[in-house]
Amino acid sequence: MEIERYDPFDGRLGFALASKVGDVLYVSGMTGIDDQMQVPDGMEAQMRQAYANIENILRHHGVGLDRVFEQVLFFVGEEGPAFEAYRQVCGELFGKQAPAATMVGVTRLVDPRYAIEIKVTAAL
Amino acid sequence: MEIERYDPFDGRLGFALASKVGDVLYVSGMTGIDDQMQVPDGMEAQMRQAYANIENILRHHGVGLDRVFEQVLFFVGEEGPAFEAYRQVCGELFGKQAPAATMVGVTRLVDPRYAIEIKVTAAL
Amino acid sequence: MEIERYDPFDGRLGFALASKVGDVLYVSGMTGIDDQMQVPDGMEAQMRQAYANIENILRHHGVGLDRVFEQVLFFVGEEGPAFEAYRQVCGELFGKQAPAATMVGVTRLVDPRYAIEIKVTAAL
Repeated sequence: MEIERYDPFDGRLGFALASKVGDVLYVSGMTGIDDQMQVPDGMEAQMRQAYANIENILRHHGVGLDRVFEQVLFFVGEEGPAFEAYRQVCGELFGKQAPAATMVGVTRLVDPRYAIEIKVTAAL
Repeated sequence: MEIERYDPFDGRLGFALASKVGDVLYVSGMTGIDDQMQVPDGMEAQMRQAYANIENILRHHGVGLDRVFEQVLFFVGEEGPAFEAYRQVCGELFGKQAPAATMVGVTRLVDPRYAIEIKVTAAL
Repeated sequence: MEIERYDPFDGRLGFALASKVGDVLYVSGMTGIDDQMQVPDGMEAQMRQAYANIENILRHHGVGLDRVFEQVLFFVGEEGPAFEAYRQVCGELFGKQAPAATMVGVTRLVDPRYAIEIKVTAAL
């Protein structure tokens, strides 16, 4: 099976943004950093940016968030605000069609500014 | 590829219990909550309930735990009791046919009562 | 779909080292333990051993690290040294062809000596 890595940074990040294998797209864990390298304050704002980053990667492959079938969310801090932000943001983005999900609290992410990292898998 | 979401709660949970894509079933992270919304005390009891919840989802799709090929376990607290519970419960459930596994400690899960969340993937 | 579990320890570990389903190999989370049951000190050394363990499993299935299309790294401790070790070791092993990746900090792994657990998925 062919592996198509999607790496617009040409190796500088140290990982591909996604790998396409067959009809499945495995997206790297995305965080709330924007293309100006800014990270907004707050769980909900970071979650929105993370999904914007995910959507950019999906759009590059010709699909949208509705093709995400599984997601894993890694949050830093208290579970209450994290789950509230999830309900709010994913309610807006997925409506009643949210994918299978796993959500766990972690000690830290690779940048101390990050409050959330979201890893999705999508069907093309 | 078609995505079949399994969501008997019709969007109220905020996620599907599982997504079927091709012949693979991606099950959401399951915890020790039962259908009366009770969570038993103790790692081993919660693990048993989590697998009972997983098995219900698998049975709905016509298969059993023997079709799980990968699992990721996220535990809260000390690693010793968590791994002991894993050995005991998975020994009973899978015998010598346990799937590939990853097991890591997390800070918290989405409900402070939860000690374990288990995410499995199964072949239909 | 057939599931081929790879378990050279014949059930004694309590999990398979990998599961092959179709043309995809799902490898269990690997750590820095060597075949003498020793765990080197330091994130980078453990990461090298973990990838050596992963590579052994891949080789058994006829492929190398270049067929890994996704990886999730779970580290213990500070994110700075963990990400530095990742850049160094994965730079050597994957060059500019690194797979999609997710990297998160966890409280603990199943043995207190472990600083890193790496779960990869590969296309055969």
